[in-house]
Amino acid sequence: MEKLVRVEQPTTRITGEVTRINMRDRGFDCAGRGDYGDFVKEEYERFCDKYPLSHAMFDMISGFGAMSGAEVKNNRAPIPQDPHMLSRHIKRLGYFLRADVMGICELPEWAIYGVDSEGHPITINHKYAIVVAIDQDYQTMSASTGDDWISCSQSALGYVNSALISRMISNYIRYLGYSAQPHHSGNYQVMITPLCLMAGIGEICRTGVVLNPFLGTRFKAAAVTTDLPLEQDRPVDFGLQEFCMNCEKCADECPSGSIVFGDKSVHNGYESWRIDHKSCTSYRISNQNGSSCGTCIKACPWNKPEGRIHDFVRWVVKHTHFFDRFLVWMDDVGGYSKQRIKKKWWFDLEERDGELRIPKKSNEVNIEKEG
Amino acid sequence: MEKLVRVEQPTTRITGEVTRINMRDRGFDCAGRGDYGDFVKEEYERFCDKYPLSHAMFDMISGFGAMSGAEVKNNRAPIPQDPHMLSRHIKRLGYFLRADVMGICELPEWAIYGVDSEGHPITINHKYAIVVAIDQDYQTMSASTGDDWISCSQSALGYVNSALISRMISNYIRYLGYSAQPHHSGNYQVMITPLCLMAGIGEICRTGVVLNPFLGTRFKAAAVTTDLPLEQDRPVDFGLQEFCMNCEKCADECPSGSIVFGDKSVHNGYESWRIDHKSCTSYRISNQNGSSCGTCIKACPWNKPEGRIHDFVRWVVKHTHFFDRFLVWMDDVGGYSKQRIKKKWWFDLEERDGELRIPKKSNEVNIEKEG
Repeated sequence: MEKLVRVEQPTTRITGEVTRINMRDRGFDCAGRGDYGDFVKEEYERFCDKYPLSHAMFDMISGFGAMSGAEVKNNRAPIPQDPHMLSRHIKRLGYFLRADVMGICELPEWAIYGVDSEGHPITINHKYAIVVAIDQDYQTMSASTGDDWISCSQSALGYVNSALISRMISNYIRYLGYSAQPHHSGNYQVMITPLCLMAGIGEICRTGVVLNPFLGTRFKAAAVTTDLPLEQDRPVDFGLQEFCMNCEKCADECPSGSIVFGDKSVHNGYESWRIDHKSCTSYRISNQNGSSCGTCIKACPWNKPEGRIHDFVRWVVKHTHFFDRFLVWMDDVGGYSKQRIKKKWWFDLEERDGELRIPKKSNEVNIEKEG
Repeated sequence: MEKLVRVEQPTTRITGEVTRINMRDRGFDCAGRGDYGDFVKEEYERFCDKYPLSHAMFDMISGFGAMSGAEVKNNRAPIPQDPHMLSRHIKRLGYFLRADVMGICELPEWAIYGVDSEGHPITINHKYAIVVAIDQDYQTMSASTGDDWISCSQSALGYVNSALISRMISNYIRYLGYSAQPHHSGNYQVMITPLCLMAGIGEICRTGVVLNPFLGTRFKAAAVTTDLPLEQDRPVDFGLQEFCMNCEKCADECPSGSIVFGDKSVHNGYESWRIDHKSCTSYRISNQNGSSCGTCIKACPWNKPEGRIHDFVRWVVKHTHFFDRFLVWMDDVGGYSKQRIKKKWWFDLEERDGELRIPKKSNEVNIEKEG
């Protein structure tokens, strides 16, 4: 990450004033309220619990949300006040705590939600945000269709680990005598996507989220806002904007048709590809043949494991767009977005009325065959 | 791990009847009660909290302990009853959840503590134990002296992650309709060392704990006991017993002289090297120049990063003991047990009377110099 080209302005142009978003307008809030219809509202109630693994994982995430944070110490610790040193320290701490990617930015006011789900205005006076990103496991992504029964648990993997790490970093900073607040699944007061953009975790891609050059969009992130004096990372540019123009695989494969083809548009001050949040959220919540959906994550040519060849391809994309379409074709030929069913390790199960059943549409595989 | 030679009996001979241990007799219980003297008792009270990072990490571990587990579902899930498949499934699940090493064994009755810290008898009817091991971070171990201010946080790293994973696996099994119980830091009813031995995580080494061929003793483990029908792994033999006879580096470097030189002895039915628990625990708790101690972990020639050369050395040790002393000498020459201070990323700090100070003996390094 430290070798990526950094730029002054993010590659997603911010063309005008960005209005703060209200938490009540988020897709899942709308779904829970019934704005997306009765069926989606009903399915929302069992969204995390209908598969036993995501249920077990979200138990822990809810548990984190219910924990109280440490008290901020009255006396500040005798640590250096050099923002460069402190940023290095905090990022190295994040990697020690098993984060996959760390980044730091100033906290723009427009990245703070306007009002919370109950309609109360949100105020955060912290100057900086620390971003903690966690890989959702390449092997499992390979073995899945993208929207089968493991999908929600893959999200939960990113959520639970980034939540744990953000809480430990936040408490640590409080013990150093500085204010800090963790923002993670079930506990956000800031929007994660703009923070990932500004902290150089990646560029915004066609699906509207941040894409990291090493993980693609196969990650979830949490943040810690703080007044610890930090040096900020700058946004990155690895050639994604033109790549996404030339690719469109996610738009091709999205089962709910929520991703646009073609050009960007301007909305709320951003120039980016605008996905249909209503149809995306509704599909994930009410998917009857799986638990949630991550088809766009799996379809993306940037969803790759570590390796020299992929390092070389990243270098090519950075330096010329001449090969973009060829590389997307190579990705198809390589079958990266196909399901590698022999690697499937989970059971297809669905909870209904307190009982686990084998779902109607299941691509169950004999795990024994794996070896 | 799956390629290691498995054996019928563990390489630590169990020569007679093993008596169940009472939780009250554990080193930390003794220290907390005052059996190791007033000073150790006083220091015990601030053991995890005297360094701000371990404090923040143990906040989460205590939080886990306070969470209630999921209810066991009345109806069992329609999953295969083949123990081989179920064991593969559970181990693959553990790796998905970011465990570093997984193993499964039958739960021997002598591995269950006899009575808890309050003196209540412990009964566990589960037939199997699933072991989850977490690496304590090679890079940080390299940068530390072994008993400086980061040591307790390195332990906490293994504890917090194995606790999280064990709780998710336990809740998942309960949702499948089988009984399960997590055992992790602050929440044990079983002894982890014998389970690591029986589940083939490694062999018992000179320091009395289990050594894994890839991690050395640089890991912490948690367990889930359960009645889910599982296939057990067998113990491993990678040539450690004779290696430890030839090495003795841990005994040389132990700052409290708690590790014996020479031969094994028989105690409570085991034939192994018996460490002095009182002096080891007392040193860790009352270390005035750091937070806890992991000198033996760092000194051990098996504390190595991943790599082809070390794979080859492991192969040599497995197949002949002729080179053992030469390899220990090579390890010295390689300077693996030296502190790589340029890699140090943490601050030396000590909490006293609610205030963080720079400790008297500090090897503070300018983090900026790192790059």
